[in-house]
Amino acid sequence: MATIGFDADDTLWANEEMFAQSEELFRKIAAPWASAEEADAALLQTERTNVKAFGFGVKSFCLSMIETIIDLSAGAVSTATIAEITQRGHQMMTAPTVPLAHVTATLRELRDHYRLLVITKGDLLHQLRRVADSGIAALVDDVEVVPTKDPATYTHLLERHRIDPDRFVMVGNSLGSDIVPVLAIGGRAIHVPYHLQWALDRADPPPPSERWSTASSIAEVPKLVSELLASPIDALDPMVRHGS
Amino acid sequence: MATIGFDADDTLWANEEMFAQSEELFRKIAAPWASAEEADAALLQTERTNVKAFGFGVKSFCLSMIETIIDLSAGAVSTATIAEITQRGHQMMTAPTVPLAHVTATLRELRDHYRLLVITKGDLLHQLRRVADSGIAALVDDVEVVPTKDPATYTHLLERHRIDPDRFVMVGNSLGSDIVPVLAIGGRAIHVPYHLQWALDRADPPPPSERWSTASSIAEVPKLVSELLASPIDALDPMVRHGS
Repeated sequence: MATIGFDADDTLWANEEMFAQSEELFRKIAAPWASAEEADAALLQTERTNVKAFGFGVKSFCLSMIETIIDLSAGAVSTATIAEITQRGHQMMTAPTVPLAHVTATLRELRDHYRLLVITKGDLLHQLRRVADSGIAALVDDVEVVPTKDPATYTHLLERHRIDPDRFVMVGNSLGSDIVPVLAIGGRAIHVPYHLQWALDRADPPPPSERWSTASSIAEVPKLVSELLASPIDALDPMVRHGS
Repeated sequence: MATIGFDADDTLWANEEMFAQSEELFRKIAAPWASAEEADAALLQTERTNVKAFGFGVKSFCLSMIETIIDLSAGAVSTATIAEITQRGHQMMTAPTVPLAHVTATLRELRDHYRLLVITKGDLLHQLRRVADSGIAALVDDVEVVPTKDPATYTHLLERHRIDPDRFVMVGNSLGSDIVPVLAIGGRAIHVPYHLQWALDRADPPPPSERWSTASSIAEVPKLVSELLASPIDALDPMVRHGS
């Protein structure tokens, strides 16, 4: 049985909107000291640094907002405003998680034919809670929250779950996190673009090949998975076929 | 081959000291508005609430310190002090991770005879980084960071790794996280007490049985594991034996 891995944020449920709203809040908070562009740039710079130290997710984002507003305001920001940021963190952590259109039906269609994994970056507790909250927990076989999505992470997960990369298809909205690293380890992938993309999660598309395709909706995934898995191993780059 | 699970914080490396130092910093910060006892009690109360929303780990702890000091000071705390707290968060996330005495030698002794897992609560990125930083990554077979350590979590992990509970021994410093829930699912356990224990992680010991024991040092684990695994299945409660 082949395995399909699903990214979660902006693949199974909307995520970037919530962060975009928080960035909008941040611009308002920062308005006495910075233009919207300056606020965005300063926050992104802090996030870029803090992702390394603090990882992905809401808590890291909240700490980045707090550090950035203290810095931008040269310490003049009020503690009431900082409390507003931590309050926003609580809101983000507990916001309802609603599956995107066609997600539930697609998982139901696939689950009898494939092993289904959710593979997502972010906050461990938050992501597990969202899987439960979204109602999809019973439709998937397992959930893996990872600190980063690089080839080594995918290799480790596939070994842990005893999955042959050639029988693995990753589905997600991020070229850099869901498509490129999976192709690099000999897997296959389906890109389901989302209309928003975090600035720190952008990448160029890999060269066209029979090992990945693009869907305009997650509802196309069952058909595309069949096509991708039918593409013969001989179509692969020999380097990949021999496991390097 | 039987599997040994190791808790990480205060089992493989010191952790509570670092939090205790941060609590000491918090008392100093709060001193203009609260006694040490009041500061401790207020922070613990915030942590108790936030563990549910934000989970375990340094980022959650930092956000709790920030919320508590704004509250305790009725907003009068300076933003420089809040920046000191986020700075402390960075220090905690990047502090060197040194294995406790006998840890490395014990893992080396065990690894040829057992499958070794690290099973730890906390921040995903932080805990994986500490495994790498401590130098023990190559000595263990896999690392699982979990949001909570209840019987359901252990059952899920043992299924994921195809481990028979009867052939699983958990080693850790926390009765409530490492011993009680593992016994509840039919596993075995070794309690290695640590001289400090987080107030939110205390529990009463389970009744004495042949399925768990106490070590005065992790160096005793190899001998105790042999003894525990040698205790016959018939010694177990029949309810446990039949998988309920």
